[in-house]
Amino acid sequence: MSNRLLLEPLVRATLLEDLGRAGDLTTDAIVPLDQQATAEIRARVDGIVAGIDAAQLAFLLLDPQSIITVTHHDGSRVCAGDTIMRIQCKARALLSAERTALNFMGRLCGIATLTAEYVREVAHTKTAIVCTRKTTPCMRFLEKEAVRLGGGKNHRFGLDDAVLIKDNHLVAAGGITTAVERVRAYVGHLVKIELEVDTYKQLEEALAIGVDIILLDNMSLDEMQSAVALTADRALLEASGSMQLSRVRSVAEVGVDLISVGSLTHSVRNLDIGLDFL
Amino acid sequence: MSNRLLLEPLVRATLLEDLGRAGDLTTDAIVPLDQQATAEIRARVDGIVAGIDAAQLAFLLLDPQSIITVTHHDGSRVCAGDTIMRIQCKARALLSAERTALNFMGRLCGIATLTAEYVREVAHTKTAIVCTRKTTPCMRFLEKEAVRLGGGKNHRFGLDDAVLIKDNHLVAAGGITTAVERVRAYVGHLVKIELEVDTYKQLEEALAIGVDIILLDNMSLDEMQSAVALTADRALLEASGSMQLSRVRSVAEVGVDLISVGSLTHSVRNLDIGLDFL
Amino acid sequence: MSNRLLLEPLVRATLLEDLGRAGDLTTDAIVPLDQQATAEIRARVDGIVAGIDAAQLAFLLLDPQSIITVTHHDGSRVCAGDTIMRIQCKARALLSAERTALNFMGRLCGIATLTAEYVREVAHTKTAIVCTRKTTPCMRFLEKEAVRLGGGKNHRFGLDDAVLIKDNHLVAAGGITTAVERVRAYVGHLVKIELEVDTYKQLEEALAIGVDIILLDNMSLDEMQSAVALTADRALLEASGSMQLSRVRSVAEVGVDLISVGSLTHSVRNLDIGLDFL
Amino acid sequence: MSNRLLLEPLVRATLLEDLGRAGDLTTDAIVPLDQQATAEIRARVDGIVAGIDAAQLAFLLLDPQSIITVTHHDGSRVCAGDTIMRIQCKARALLSAERTALNFMGRLCGIATLTAEYVREVAHTKTAIVCTRKTTPCMRFLEKEAVRLGGGKNHRFGLDDAVLIKDNHLVAAGGITTAVERVRAYVGHLVKIELEVDTYKQLEEALAIGVDIILLDNMSLDEMQSAVALTADRALLEASGSMQLSRVRSVAEVGVDLISVGSLTHSVRNLDIGLDFL
Amino acid sequence: MSNRLLLEPLVRATLLEDLGRAGDLTTDAIVPLDQQATAEIRARVDGIVAGIDAAQLAFLLLDPQSIITVTHHDGSRVCAGDTIMRIQCKARALLSAERTALNFMGRLCGIATLTAEYVREVAHTKTAIVCTRKTTPCMRFLEKEAVRLGGGKNHRFGLDDAVLIKDNHLVAAGGITTAVERVRAYVGHLVKIELEVDTYKQLEEALAIGVDIILLDNMSLDEMQSAVALTADRALLEASGSMQLSRVRSVAEVGVDLISVGSLTHSVRNLDIGLDFL
Amino acid sequence: MSNRLLLEPLVRATLLEDLGRAGDLTTDAIVPLDQQATAEIRARVDGIVAGIDAAQLAFLLLDPQSIITVTHHDGSRVCAGDTIMRIQCKARALLSAERTALNFMGRLCGIATLTAEYVREVAHTKTAIVCTRKTTPCMRFLEKEAVRLGGGKNHRFGLDDAVLIKDNHLVAAGGITTAVERVRAYVGHLVKIELEVDTYKQLEEALAIGVDIILLDNMSLDEMQSAVALTADRALLEASGSMQLSRVRSVAEVGVDLISVGSLTHSVRNLDIGLDFL
Repeated sequence: MSNRLLLEPLVRATLLEDLGRAGDLTTDAIVPLDQQATAEIRARVDGIVAGIDAAQLAFLLLDPQSIITVTHHDGSRVCAGDTIMRIQCKARALLSAERTALNFMGRLCGIATLTAEYVREVAHTKTAIVCTRKTTPCMRFLEKEAVRLGGGKNHRFGLDDAVLIKDNHLVAAGGITTAVERVRAYVGHLVKIELEVDTYKQLEEALAIGVDIILLDNMSLDEMQSAVALTADRALLEASGSMQLSRVRSVAEVGVDLISVGSLTHSVRNLDIGLDFL
Repeated sequence: MSNRLLLEPLVRATLLEDLGRAGDLTTDAIVPLDQQATAEIRARVDGIVAGIDAAQLAFLLLDPQSIITVTHHDGSRVCAGDTIMRIQCKARALLSAERTALNFMGRLCGIATLTAEYVREVAHTKTAIVCTRKTTPCMRFLEKEAVRLGGGKNHRFGLDDAVLIKDNHLVAAGGITTAVERVRAYVGHLVKIELEVDTYKQLEEALAIGVDIILLDNMSLDEMQSAVALTADRALLEASGSMQLSRVRSVAEVGVDLISVGSLTHSVRNLDIGLDFL
Repeated sequence: MSNRLLLEPLVRATLLEDLGRAGDLTTDAIVPLDQQATAEIRARVDGIVAGIDAAQLAFLLLDPQSIITVTHHDGSRVCAGDTIMRIQCKARALLSAERTALNFMGRLCGIATLTAEYVREVAHTKTAIVCTRKTTPCMRFLEKEAVRLGGGKNHRFGLDDAVLIKDNHLVAAGGITTAVERVRAYVGHLVKIELEVDTYKQLEEALAIGVDIILLDNMSLDEMQSAVALTADRALLEASGSMQLSRVRSVAEVGVDLISVGSLTHSVRNLDIGLDFL
Repeated sequence: MSNRLLLEPLVRATLLEDLGRAGDLTTDAIVPLDQQATAEIRARVDGIVAGIDAAQLAFLLLDPQSIITVTHHDGSRVCAGDTIMRIQCKARALLSAERTALNFMGRLCGIATLTAEYVREVAHTKTAIVCTRKTTPCMRFLEKEAVRLGGGKNHRFGLDDAVLIKDNHLVAAGGITTAVERVRAYVGHLVKIELEVDTYKQLEEALAIGVDIILLDNMSLDEMQSAVALTADRALLEASGSMQLSRVRSVAEVGVDLISVGSLTHSVRNLDIGLDFL
Repeated sequence: MSNRLLLEPLVRATLLEDLGRAGDLTTDAIVPLDQQATAEIRARVDGIVAGIDAAQLAFLLLDPQSIITVTHHDGSRVCAGDTIMRIQCKARALLSAERTALNFMGRLCGIATLTAEYVREVAHTKTAIVCTRKTTPCMRFLEKEAVRLGGGKNHRFGLDDAVLIKDNHLVAAGGITTAVERVRAYVGHLVKIELEVDTYKQLEEALAIGVDIILLDNMSLDEMQSAVALTADRALLEASGSMQLSRVRSVAEVGVDLISVGSLTHSVRNLDIGLDFL
Repeated sequence: MSNRLLLEPLVRATLLEDLGRAGDLTTDAIVPLDQQATAEIRARVDGIVAGIDAAQLAFLLLDPQSIITVTHHDGSRVCAGDTIMRIQCKARALLSAERTALNFMGRLCGIATLTAEYVREVAHTKTAIVCTRKTTPCMRFLEKEAVRLGGGKNHRFGLDDAVLIKDNHLVAAGGITTAVERVRAYVGHLVKIELEVDTYKQLEEALAIGVDIILLDNMSLDEMQSAVALTADRALLEASGSMQLSRVRSVAEVGVDLISVGSLTHSVRNLDIGLDFL
C-alpha cells in the first residue's frame, strides 16, 4: 500500500548510509553470491512489535526474491524468545541488511512497548496517552505509528496539520483573542485549534473565545482539577510537562482528556531484538 | 567546512518533515513577517554539548541573516541553567525551527553525556569506550561525532570502511583461516580487519592467522582475562556484549583495549535542553 | 521564511526543466556574460496578484545579486498596465528565467483572480468559497495559497491532514456509523472529520453520530435548504458539485457554510502577465 | 519503455504530495488492507484521451499487482459515458491514487481536446498548430505529448534544443545579422534557428542572413500575407500572438506554416473524467 | 549564470563521493578550523584550459568565502608552469576540495586539448570536428563544452534534441523512406534529421527524401569523395568511424562538412594539472 | 545484491541524461512499441571484461522483462570477436539504452584491461598495483571495482576511510610527529594511517612514530632502494609518481609493497566494445 511509497526512501537511505561507497566488504569478500540462508528475528525480552514493514523492506531492497513470513504482526505482544518473522533470502542480503532492519525494529518496538506501559497506567480512565513532535529526525511517521501500535494516540504530525498556539505566539499577537482571530482568518475549516495556557485566567479567556483543545502546561494536580471543573467539556483538555510513568495515573484521574508524553519518542530504550541464522 | 555539505541535506529534510506542505500554520497566521526576536538555548540539566552545527543550520536555513553566538561549544560541559547559544533572527524562523533544532541537540547532547559517564568509569585504565553501528537511521555521522565529543572513540562508520568478520561469516567461509584469506584477497592495504571470537580456540586461530583487532563476544571476566594474557598485544582486543555502565570498570581493568557499547547510541535519554525567548 | 525552503525545490526543478542539459542556447550565444538589464513584470489585464515569491526566486536562482522591487504584493488588485515588480539583474538571468517566472505567476494570478470573482458573488452571505484537491501535480501548496489570496479558504491539503469519508468508504465500511467509529479509533484528537452525504437519510445518520463537517454532494437547492434546516448548526455544511460562477450566489443564500469549487484550480485561465525590458 | 523512467519521478512526487507524512487517513482507517476493488475511469463529456500512462502508474505505484485494461488508448476520441480504462487492485490503492490519476488525466485530456478543436479549424490548410513553452511547471513533456495526441505539433521543449532569437536578444546583439552569426558560432549543426520579427524590414534581413524559421509576432492578416509572399518558402513561417480559436482559420488561410497557441497549455479546462467503483 | 544551476548538483555529488560519511579525516584531525591558505592551480604541461567553473565551485561549496582569481580563462592556451587560477580560502576547504577540483579540470582540459589537436589538422578546410554521445556518465554537458573550448562543434546532446536514424532503425522501419516519414510525423519543426548511410544506394535514397544531415559510416576516402560529389550540398555530410588524429586531414580534404570523433570524449588523457600551496 | 542499490541511481541518472525531456525521438517515432529484438555485446579487441552489472541495468531499467545471458563475466579475458552478453528485450529498450550501456562498459573494460597490463609487468614480484582517487566524478566505486577485476588492489575510496598525511598537512601541523598524534587522537581503531615522505629524514621520523603505510613520493630507484632497506618491513611502502607502464617493473624489483598509478583511472582508453543486432 501507500506504506511502501512513504517508507522506501527512508529505508533505502539507511541501507546506503551503512553500505557507503563500496558496500559490505566483509560479506562480499567471504560469502558466495548465490548462497541462500534463513534466519529469524526474535525478541530477547517481552514487548510490543512495531517496525515490521521497515525491516522487511530492508531485506527486500537487497534481495527482491526474499520470502518473509511474519508470525507476530505489528501491535502484537511478544515474550522473550518469540519469533517475530522468518526471512529466507540470499545470505549476502541477510548479512548486509541485518543491522538496518534491527535498528529500525529495535527503536520502534521500544516506542510501542513504552507507550503500552503508559497506556496501562491510565486504562481505567477516559484519558488517552498522546505523543509529541519531539521525534527523531526523518523518523516521525514511523514513530507516530509505533505510538499507535502501543495503544497511544497521535498529536499533530507537523506544523501544518493543526494549530497549536504557544506562549511566544501570544506575546507576538498581544493576547489570546487576537491570536485566535488571526488563526481563524488564515486556516481552513478542517484545521483544529489548540491553545496552551499557563494560568486560570488564560483558561477563562480561551474558553470564552472558543478553541478545540486547551493544553495545560506544567500545572499541578490541583490546578488541573480546577481546569477540568471550569472547562466542563467545552474543550478537550491536554495535560503536558513532566509526565513520568509514575505520575500519569494521578493526572489521568483528575479527568483530563489527553496526556502528552515527549519521552515516548525522545528517550526510549531500544527493545532487545536479535537475528539468528538457522 | 565540509561539515555543512554533509549536514545540510539532513537538516533540510528534517525541517521539511515538520513544515509539511503548508508550513507553520500557527506562526504564519500570527507572527508578522519581519518581526525580529532573540532567544537562548539553555541546558536544563548538567551534560556535555553536542549538535550545535545542526541546531544553527536549522535557524540559518529559515533565516540566512540569523546571528548566532555560541557560548558553550561542542564538547563543553554545561550545568543546568547555562546558556549554550543565543540566536537573533526573524521571529517566524525562531518559532518554526525551534523543535527541529532541539530534537537534534537533545539527542546528540544525550549521547555525548552518556558517553562521558562511561568514559569516566574507565579513565584510570588504557581502555577506550567505542560506539557501534546500532545508530539511528540517517543520523550515524552525527551520533558518531557525539560519541567523540563525550570522550569515546569511533568504531567503523559502515560496512565499507573496515572488515568485521562475525560468526555467520565464519559459517559461510567454513573457518577463520579461509575467511581471513578471502578478505585479504579482496580489500586494499588501507582496510583493517577485525574478527569476532566466542572461544579460546577461535582466539588462538585468529592470532595465528593475524588480524588487527579481535572482538571478544559476550565473554566472562575470567575468559577475557585469559584472552588478554594469550594475546599479549599481538592484536587489539575489543570486549562486547552487555556492557552496562556498572560493569565497564571491571571489564576495563581486565586489560582489554576497547569496550564497545551499543546503548550509547540506541537507548539514550535526550538531554533536557530548552529555548527561551528573551 | 520557511516559504523559500518549500518553494526552492519546485522553482529549481522548473528552471532545470527549461534549461535542459545545455542551458539557454540563444541567450548564452548572444548576450555577454556580465551585461546587466532591468525589466518590469506588468499586468496586461485586471486581476489579483499571486506567485511573487516563485517569480522572484526564479531570477534569484540564476543571479543571486538580482535586485527586485515589488510594487504590487501578493493579494493586491492590479489593473491592466500596472507594474507588479521590477527586476535588475544580469541580462542572461532575465532572459533565461523569464518564462519560468511568468508561467508561475500567470497561473497563480489566474487562480487568485478567479477565486475573487466567486468570492464577490457570495460576499453578502456567511458562505466561504473553498478549493479542492483537484490541483496541478506538485503545485498544490502554491495553488492553495493563491486561493487564499483571492479571498477563498482552503480545504484539506492532502489525504493526511483531515478525514473525508466518501461513498466508496461507506461501502467498504458497511455504513456511516461503522466508518466514523473506525476513523475515531485511528486518528488523533487534532484531526477533523468530514462526511459526504447524498441523501437526507444519510444526513440524519451523520448528525446522529456527530461529525465536524458534512459535504452535500450534488444536491438541488431545495435539498440543500432542507439539509440546512435539519442540521441546525450541529455541523458545518459544505455544498459541492457543479458550482459554476453563475450558481454560487443562489447556493450561498440557502445558508450552507462552504461551497467547494474544483475549477478554481483545475480549469483556470492564466492571467495575462508580461515582462518588459526597460 | 523509456516512458516510465521519465514519468515515475513525477507521478511518485505527486502521490507523495497528496499522501503527506501520514498517508490516506480516511482509507487506512476504514478499508481493510487486503480488500480488492474494481473501478472504471470514464469520460463524462466528449473529448480526446491523454495521460493514460500517468494514471496507470499512479495505481501501479500503490499496488504493483494492479491489473489495468485500457479500452480507449491515448489519442482516441471518446464520448460522454465511454470507459477509458478499468482498474482492478487493492481498494486502498484505488481510493488513495484516484485523485492523482484524475488530476493528471483531466488536465492532459483537456489539452488534447482543445488542441483537436484548433486543428479542426485549420485542417483544410497546410498549417500546423503548435504549442509553446507556456506550460505548467514540471509537466512540460506530458503537456507536449498531449498536444501531439490532439493532432498538434511541438515547438521546442526548452531553451536548449533549438534557438529562438527574440527582440531582447536583438537589442543585446545590436542587430539580426550579429545575433545570427553569434548563434552559428556557438551551436552545433543539429540545432535549428528561429528568429522573431515584428516588421517587414526585419523579415527581409532575416531572409538575407538565412534562418530555418521566422516567427511573425502579433502581425495583422495583411502583414502576414505580405510576409508569406516575400518569404516564398525560403523559411518556415510561424504566426504567433492572440491566436484565439475563432481566428486561426483565417490566419491559416494566409498560408503560414505554423500557428503557435500558448493557451493550449496555459489556459485549459480539465476534461471531465470520473472514476466509478463497480 | 544558469551554469551554476546545472553544475552544482554534479560538483556537490562529487565532493560527497569523496567526503563519504565522515568527511576528510586527515584534514579535520590536523588542520585548525579557521586556518587560511592560498594555492595556485598550475598547468604542468601545455594545453587548453577547461573546467574552471567546476573547479571553482568545488572550493566555494566547502568555503563560500573563497576568493578565486582566474588568470587563464576557459579556452585559453597555457604552457607548462602557467598559473590558471589562485584560490584563497580556509586551509581545510583547499585540502578537501583539491582532488575533486583537479579531477574535473584534468579531464576537461584533456578533452579541450585533444580537440584542439584535431581542429588544427583540419584548419585549412571547411570541415568541423564534432563530438559524439560517447561521453562519461553524468558529465556530458561539461564534456561537450570542453569540445567547444578546444575549437570543436557539438553533435546532439542526447536522444531528444535531434533525430539520428541508424541502420537498426532502418531495419525496424523497412526502409529509409518509411523511417523518415515516421519521424516527420512525430517531431516538431525545430528538430533536425540526420540519417546514417553505409552505401551509395542509401545515399541516393536519402537525398531523394531529403534530410538535413547524412552520416557516412565507415567509408573509404574514395567512397566519401563520391558521396560529396553526389550530394552537391543538398545536405550536410558527416564522416564517422575510425577517425584517428593521423587520418582526419585527408578526410577533411575530401570535402565533408563534419568529422565526428568519439575518442575526443571516451579515450582522453587527463591534462597534467596540479595545485601548489603558497 | 547490494550492488543494485549502489548502481541504480547512477545508471538511472545516466539514462535520463541521454533521454532528456522528450525521450528517444528517433526510436519512438520509428520502432513499434512492442517489437522485440535480440542483440549481442561483443569485444572488438582483446581485453578484460568489466561493467556488466551497469550495462545490464541500463536495459533492465527500460525493459524490466529483458532476458540477459552473460557469456563472459566480469574479470574474464576476451578476444576480439568474443560475445560478452546477449540481450533479448523490446527493440525500443535496446536502441535507447545501447549508448549508455556501452559508455559504462567501454570505460570500465578499458580500466580493467590497462590494470592487467600493469599487473603483468610486476607479476614476478610481491608488489601490488593500486589505484588512486584520481577517478571520474561519480564513478569511483565502479572504477575501483574495475581495477580489482584487472588484478589491481584498491587504495582508499575517499577521504573518510583511511588517513593519508601529505606535505601540506605536515606544514599545517608543524611536523610529522604532531600530525600523527593529532590523527591518532581523532580517528578510531579501525582506521589505518599512511604518511607521504619526500626525504630520507622524513622516512626516519615516520618509522620512529610508527604508521601503517609510507608513501614514497617521486623518488628515484636509488632512493627507493634505500627506503626499502631502512624500513625493513616496519611499514608497508608505496611508490608513487610518474609510474608509467614502462617503469613499474624496475620499481617493483626494488622491493616496494605497492605502486600507485593514477592513469589507471584518469587517462584510460575505452575498450572497443560494440552492440550487434541479430
